[in-house]
Amino acid sequence: MAYKRSYWIGFDLGGTKMLAAIFNDRFEIVARKRRRIKLGQAATPGVAQMIDIIGEVMERAQIEPEEIAGAGVAVPGPVDPRRGIVIEMPNLDWRELALGELLGAELKCPVHILNDVDAGTYGEYRFGAGRGGRCVLGVFPGTGIGGGCVYEGNLLQGSSRTCMEIGHIRVMPNGPLCGCGGRGCLEAVASRLAISQAVAAAAYRGEAPTILREVGTNIREIRSKVLAQAATAGDKAVVEILEDAARWLGIGVAAAINLVDPDVIVLGGGLVEALPELFLRGVRESAESHAMRSFQGTFRIAVAELGDDASAKGAAAWAHHREVVAK
Amino acid sequence: MAYKRSYWIGFDLGGTKMLAAIFNDRFEIVARKRRRIKLGQAATPGVAQMIDIIGEVMERAQIEPEEIAGAGVAVPGPVDPRRGIVIEMPNLDWRELALGELLGAELKCPVHILNDVDAGTYGEYRFGAGRGGRCVLGVFPGTGIGGGCVYEGNLLQGSSRTCMEIGHIRVMPNGPLCGCGGRGCLEAVASRLAISQAVAAAAYRGEAPTILREVGTNIREIRSKVLAQAATAGDKAVVEILEDAARWLGIGVAAAINLVDPDVIVLGGGLVEALPELFLRGVRESAESHAMRSFQGTFRIAVAELGDDASAKGAAAWAHHREVVAK
Repeated sequence: MAYKRSYWIGFDLGGTKMLAAIFNDRFEIVARKRRRIKLGQAATPGVAQMIDIIGEVMERAQIEPEEIAGAGVAVPGPVDPRRGIVIEMPNLDWRELALGELLGAELKCPVHILNDVDAGTYGEYRFGAGRGGRCVLGVFPGTGIGGGCVYEGNLLQGSSRTCMEIGHIRVMPNGPLCGCGGRGCLEAVASRLAISQAVAAAAYRGEAPTILREVGTNIREIRSKVLAQAATAGDKAVVEILEDAARWLGIGVAAAINLVDPDVIVLGGGLVEALPELFLRGVRESAESHAMRSFQGTFRIAVAELGDDASAKGAAAWAHHREVVAK
Repeated sequence: MAYKRSYWIGFDLGGTKMLAAIFNDRFEIVARKRRRIKLGQAATPGVAQMIDIIGEVMERAQIEPEEIAGAGVAVPGPVDPRRGIVIEMPNLDWRELALGELLGAELKCPVHILNDVDAGTYGEYRFGAGRGGRCVLGVFPGTGIGGGCVYEGNLLQGSSRTCMEIGHIRVMPNGPLCGCGGRGCLEAVASRLAISQAVAAAAYRGEAPTILREVGTNIREIRSKVLAQAATAGDKAVVEILEDAARWLGIGVAAAINLVDPDVIVLGGGLVEALPELFLRGVRESAESHAMRSFQGTFRIAVAELGDDASAKGAAAWAHHREVVAK
């Protein structure tokens, strides 16, 4: 029998886990599978593991290879989307890896590699909080702070590598050191990691009782859920630190507004999604007061709607866009 | 006889002068005409004057209205390009003016309204220093500092008004007041106007002998040409002020690099074009050291090549792009 190629693979390659999903041509999820990656996993077994989990999810969905129209793979680091190359990966020593080619040879379909924040932003533009926007800016605070931008239906992907590095807008001259080697980057003062550092110190000083009781002062344990719990319980220092981070985020967002003039700004990531009101209010007030006057009132800020599936779904839809719409 | 619509009008509407030009379908200039605008000229006589000068340049080129395929109009202020509306104009009290519609009714051809820096950037991308770039960032220091960006052949025009407001990247917290109402914007420390202010004070203190002798301490007289003359003559204070401005420009350019990842940055405007070596060196060094490490070595910086015709030619070519290529 003749098969119709009407399914799309979306793959979210995290630094510590991977998620494979199959979507039908209405972008409803047909099956998904998640698996952990070993820290430091080398490229060859890592790619084999990716192919393996894709095989499993296809089997689970009872989809044949001949029914797959294409795949999109979201990667948490800089990529060269045109050549399908992973430039580098945090936690894994994958460098200059021709992932698109490797997967394409195995899956026998077109494979599109893109940055995970770009994938998440595209997902929110197509199916989530950014629907209908002409210029959608995605901002995802986590360990770092990622940014993405969809302009007139097209992801901005820069000339050679990942763009919209909103986490590295300098907001505090001579501010704290950043992982990028700079100082006072937005990421160094407003990422979840920067928040956890500050909260750990507050807990140590006895100013964050909920944090101290629940997880202590180890920043690895001070994650989105307990931060939200402490804020809700009224730990004053935690609320202040979060509000401060939201204010810095708004300053970074304002700088991006002056450059790309978005009509919608989508805030995402675990911490924002756990405390939507606090972040919406703080970022909105700060962005409105720091953007050029002429941009005031021209944008709305919304919280991401797709949760954990955003990157996989966005990657699959981007592959569809490149193969079907933009061809 | 049947006419072929193969000519394009490019119009550069300055704050103090207007330039109309006709291009053939290879974008060679067939005729041009320049005229001053009265300060404070109202919209109705202003538009009549535009139509008048277009008529003259068509007559000079012996082109009939039926031979015009379209027109592009570059405006020195925020526009809504999709609705063809001039949002506001410096020096002229034109607000929310439906310029595209007014001109289109008269010229009987499609009219595209765009920001003048966008037009200049597009011109450099198509015909000048940005040819062949995948992501071209234009930076034009003048009275203010304008920015534009062409990504994969398409001008980024934001969601509702002029974007790439690189002049309003905040480079110096609590820095000097800017015309936008903010503080420490790039424009407030590195525009030609900011340079002229600083040079006037240096001349007053006796540290800029060439400036003092040639034009005195009136900032209105301290323009690109005399600044270049003083720098070439070796007025130390002037060279230092210019180098400082180039360094600030590089900091602003670095912020834009982190967001849009250009492969080519085109620097233009009278002052840059009068002192290309000084600005190229200063901006390059500063941008390389302030951009994220991963962007270092990924871009080149070049000086604009089209001079005074850039905006008119870019506007005409953009009209062609929208009517013929992107349709």
